[in-house]
Amino acid sequence: MSTQAATAAARRGKLTPERETELYDAVLGLLREGGYDAVTMEGVAARTKCGKATLYRQWGTKPKLVTAALAQRRCVLFSGIDTGSLADDLREAARVAASRRERDAELMEAVAQAYIQHPDLRAALRETVIAPEIAALDGLVARAVERGEIAADNAAIGFVAPCFLGLLRVERLFEERFEDASAMRSFVDAVLLPALYAGK
Amino acid sequence: MSTQAATAAARRGKLTPERETELYDAVLGLLREGGYDAVTMEGVAARTKCGKATLYRQWGTKPKLVTAALAQRRCVLFSGIDTGSLADDLREAARVAASRRERDAELMEAVAQAYIQHPDLRAALRETVIAPEIAALDGLVARAVERGEIAADNAAIGFVAPCFLGLLRVERLFEERFEDASAMRSFVDAVLLPALYAGK
Repeated sequence: MSTQAATAAARRGKLTPERETELYDAVLGLLREGGYDAVTMEGVAARTKCGKATLYRQWGTKPKLVTAALAQRRCVLFSGIDTGSLADDLREAARVAASRRERDAELMEAVAQAYIQHPDLRAALRETVIAPEIAALDGLVARAVERGEIAADNAAIGFVAPCFLGLLRVERLFEERFEDASAMRSFVDAVLLPALYAGK
Repeated sequence: MSTQAATAAARRGKLTPERETELYDAVLGLLREGGYDAVTMEGVAARTKCGKATLYRQWGTKPKLVTAALAQRRCVLFSGIDTGSLADDLREAARVAASRRERDAELMEAVAQAYIQHPDLRAALRETVIAPEIAALDGLVARAVERGEIAADNAAIGFVAPCFLGLLRVERLFEERFEDASAMRSFVDAVLLPALYAGK
């Protein structure tokens, strides 16, 4: 956006895309550092030298600002996996799950905490953060059905996404079992693939 | 305990087992109603007409009181399942998981929340609430190995407990898929059993 256009936008009260990104980054930073409750309009305003009035005008409420920040991340962990083979796709998903960067882990923890503590946020959190991951995993399996690799009526299909997300949620309860980065890969090879190929 | 013995115990500052149970029940009640943060020594004292000093003397701190209350529950969801057949055992575990009473669900939610928010409590929570469930599921599978139903080196074995607990943690994210009480049973039949029997 040109400086002229940016100035005009600012005068109209609209934020430039760059400024919006700055604000969203501040929100995500606070979220990672201290969880949902640590995010405050004051904190975001201070961190970005933005007026609180601007924040309220643009997003209305803290929940709306936080979910907008999460929605713009566009960083879906399991998206873009399409090797042409179910086994390789699931192994790649396992590799991605095992190599989650520390920052993503903190963010996911904050989202999980917010999900438990703030029932009013659940729909928005599901839509912005959780549903895209589920869709990516479901899509990966659906492509395998289309290619004829697995039977369309195999009941294991619907459990691939729940198992991936479920294991990620509880792995810290099973320290020794999931210590090794290859544990998720082992799960794919020992549990999912035998179940998905059964009857084919 | 006789009245004489109970009075003597009270004079020595010890709580009778009945009184202890009353206090633990009050703790669990508060936990269900409002989560870990809703439990306070004041609240427990008021609910049971017990002196706060007594609570501090007996348990020292709130975390210790809460974990003691959880430990005495002795109500392990997956314990006692031993039909003699792996398939029937896992289907019974699925039935139990699907029929969790509302009170248990509230308690588990409070424990999960406390686990996320209070890292200092995690070891105690694992020991009192989580480890017994894991042990029960692991034991059920180990008996199947002993009976020769499944191969001892089947890598799926170690994932039975993580899958059960993981699915229970994320089922509310997959409303439609887990709406039906038979979903966990379907998971056992479509995913776990094929994987556990593979190569046998």
